[in-house]
Amino acid sequence: MSEVSTVDGRTVRVALLGCGTVGREVARLLTEQADELAARAGAPVELAGIAVRRPDKHPELPRHLLTADAGALVESDVDVVVELIGGIEPVRGWLLSALRKGKSVVTANKALLAEYSAELSEAADAAGADLYFEAAVAGAIPLLRPLRESLAGDRITKVMGIVNGTTNYILSAMDSTGANYAETLEEASRLGYAEADPTADVDGYDAASKAAILASLAFHSRVTASDVHREGIAGVSSFDIAAAKALGRTVKLLAICERVTADDGTESVSARVHPVMIPRSHPLAAVGGAFNAVFVEADAAGELMFYGQGAGGAPTASAVLGDLVAVARNRVLGGRGPRESAHAALPVRPHLQTPTRYHISLDVADRPGVLAQVAHVFAAHEVSIAAVRQRDRTSTASLVIVTHLAPEAALEATVEEIGKMDVVHEVVSVMRVEGED
Amino acid sequence: MSEVSTVDGRTVRVALLGCGTVGREVARLLTEQADELAARAGAPVELAGIAVRRPDKHPELPRHLLTADAGALVESDVDVVVELIGGIEPVRGWLLSALRKGKSVVTANKALLAEYSAELSEAADAAGADLYFEAAVAGAIPLLRPLRESLAGDRITKVMGIVNGTTNYILSAMDSTGANYAETLEEASRLGYAEADPTADVDGYDAASKAAILASLAFHSRVTASDVHREGIAGVSSFDIAAAKALGRTVKLLAICERVTADDGTESVSARVHPVMIPRSHPLAAVGGAFNAVFVEADAAGELMFYGQGAGGAPTASAVLGDLVAVARNRVLGGRGPRESAHAALPVRPHLQTPTRYHISLDVADRPGVLAQVAHVFAAHEVSIAAVRQRDRTSTASLVIVTHLAPEAALEATVEEIGKMDVVHEVVSVMRVEGED
Repeated sequence: MSEVSTVDGRTVRVALLGCGTVGREVARLLTEQADELAARAGAPVELAGIAVRRPDKHPELPRHLLTADAGALVESDVDVVVELIGGIEPVRGWLLSALRKGKSVVTANKALLAEYSAELSEAADAAGADLYFEAAVAGAIPLLRPLRESLAGDRITKVMGIVNGTTNYILSAMDSTGANYAETLEEASRLGYAEADPTADVDGYDAASKAAILASLAFHSRVTASDVHREGIAGVSSFDIAAAKALGRTVKLLAICERVTADDGTESVSARVHPVMIPRSHPLAAVGGAFNAVFVEADAAGELMFYGQGAGGAPTASAVLGDLVAVARNRVLGGRGPRESAHAALPVRPHLQTPTRYHISLDVADRPGVLAQVAHVFAAHEVSIAAVRQRDRTSTASLVIVTHLAPEAALEATVEEIGKMDVVHEVVSVMRVEGED
Repeated sequence: MSEVSTVDGRTVRVALLGCGTVGREVARLLTEQADELAARAGAPVELAGIAVRRPDKHPELPRHLLTADAGALVESDVDVVVELIGGIEPVRGWLLSALRKGKSVVTANKALLAEYSAELSEAADAAGADLYFEAAVAGAIPLLRPLRESLAGDRITKVMGIVNGTTNYILSAMDSTGANYAETLEEASRLGYAEADPTADVDGYDAASKAAILASLAFHSRVTASDVHREGIAGVSSFDIAAAKALGRTVKLLAICERVTADDGTESVSARVHPVMIPRSHPLAAVGGAFNAVFVEADAAGELMFYGQGAGGAPTASAVLGDLVAVARNRVLGGRGPRESAHAALPVRPHLQTPTRYHISLDVADRPGVLAQVAHVFAAHEVSIAAVRQRDRTSTASLVIVTHLAPEAALEATVEEIGKMDVVHEVVSVMRVEGED
């Protein structure tokens, strides 16, 4: 490969690792939009090589660009590495090596970032390279750049959103058909909305990685995927969906990242992924199918919402190319993108201490005094009740309770004790609640 | 003032021009969040002076920072000028002078940018200074940075949104109360949602400036406010609102910027501000009160929406501070923000050639053959009819027609001819339509 310098605005050479759904779109746009990209980057942006597992399986790509040796491509005279392979190893090693040599990295690898973002950022900072990853969260939606840059002068208090399209598709379908989880998942797989192995999506691993990335950026702290409390949607029953409907609510799998201030003024971060009931009037309730949407609350800016396609080849490629233009411009003009910002270093709050609100549907004995007995258990755990509804004919429940904010541990203990009461036939549905009524 | 250099990461000195609602919040946050801002910018960001018309009227601000001489403050040893005065002169001269001396500028001045953005950008580029203006459009909503940076590798085809809170408040109120324009405006003024002189808002000047800025960024072309076709909301009657309701639609004042491709493949830009009927199911329909929301369509990213507070002291200050951190970082690290991007240089399409869709409500004679006569007029002007509804009992109209896309000139000529027909008693409402039915 030729020795082309980028210092005086000449060609920026790009290595593309991985050429699946997203990679193909990136390769296509890099070629088709070459003139546009050059105008925006200030220099030609050239695809110098594409690493794929089996080069002979890609007759659609220029033969001379293909290689099976991703490591060697990274070490060659490229300026920027675009990583679309996914997973931790061997990708982590390649990207660290690239960054240490001062090559900038654009990646969509949420799992890697959710665990090793500190290590990667430190390597980038030490060498003066850029690390961009807009495509890792919420696909095409410009979300990380606003968090890292637009709101850099504000104080973000909450980031909450739908960041996984598969689970949103399944919950939307359960809501509209009334079908149960298992049959809806099967249908989603058949239609291509769920992977053959849907674990990463339905068990919330994918959303938890994204929550870790969002919490880290929003609160200038290091939050990894293992810090994120994670519950998937496999436990959401058609009773839960019906109970939500009866209350004018719907169930969504949300990633919730909050800045929590304790009574003594100390701050911590809560990051969690779990199913939540939200009012149907909430803007997130209307986000259907495979779309993503994220709410951000900041002291000065107030409420913001970002909405768009969270996955797919072309949408994700759009985010990758936006990053690629930014790192190319920085190489041409000598600037630097935002570094890791972890100066606040807030601790992660243990999940059991996180304040949440519960919705609880109970099937109780039909006799006077039951509410008093149940309310007594809430009071004993210092959980305050916000609303009670008895004998709701639209669901199987005969007593529905929504609490005020209380520590997760107190709520769990309350539910456990209530489940053992003689007057309680069944705990029909327990779910957390977000949004005003 | 001291001779502090910023080259090695020392203090970035900021001149604040204007200290009204937004300026006060900027001054407050610069002081209260000094440590945070320093961490994010990589160096302390210090308020070096505040120019106000009457320093003695600001006992709340530190006396030693106040000056009535904005020009002298700009010429002093400051690194960044934050301009929140508004209007064209004398602000234009001050900012040009600052940029030419290599000082970066952050401004919320939409009127100035909508006319002189090319001149200001050229001065910034020549001196290697930054010109940022996120707060000029849609207040706190991170919108310009995504357009300039996140979507830099994509091809934007449309930007459409609610960018003026006053008119949105008035139209929302007319929709919910059924009251007419004049009394709703009076109520809005009384409640502080409309200025004493509401001309800039209700006649669409404010939205037109924002449309010019959005179209310039989205299509990499120079579009000024005078290129934007502008119609305000004074002509929106309670009949229009009722006609929209009868069709499951609502009326919004939208700024619409489109990339229009002619049959021969040549591209141009259409930028316009006018009242539009949109379906109640459209995400913009639910944006009420003083909120702003903007839809962006791009080839690869698909549909995106951005939502938040479009005005107000704190929200606008949030956008200003995000820009301030970015330009301060660039000074500390030696980088540059995105320059003006006008390489596409698309021409602005004359409004009469812009393809739009019309909704027309007519009160017609109640006899057979009227529809045929009316349809004949549409056909003669080569305007294709998408839907017809006769004898609608929910409005005063007896014939409602929605067209397919047709050039504005053909639509206007059609409406004029129809208004002269004997069988047409009255043209009850004419309004453009956006969004699918």
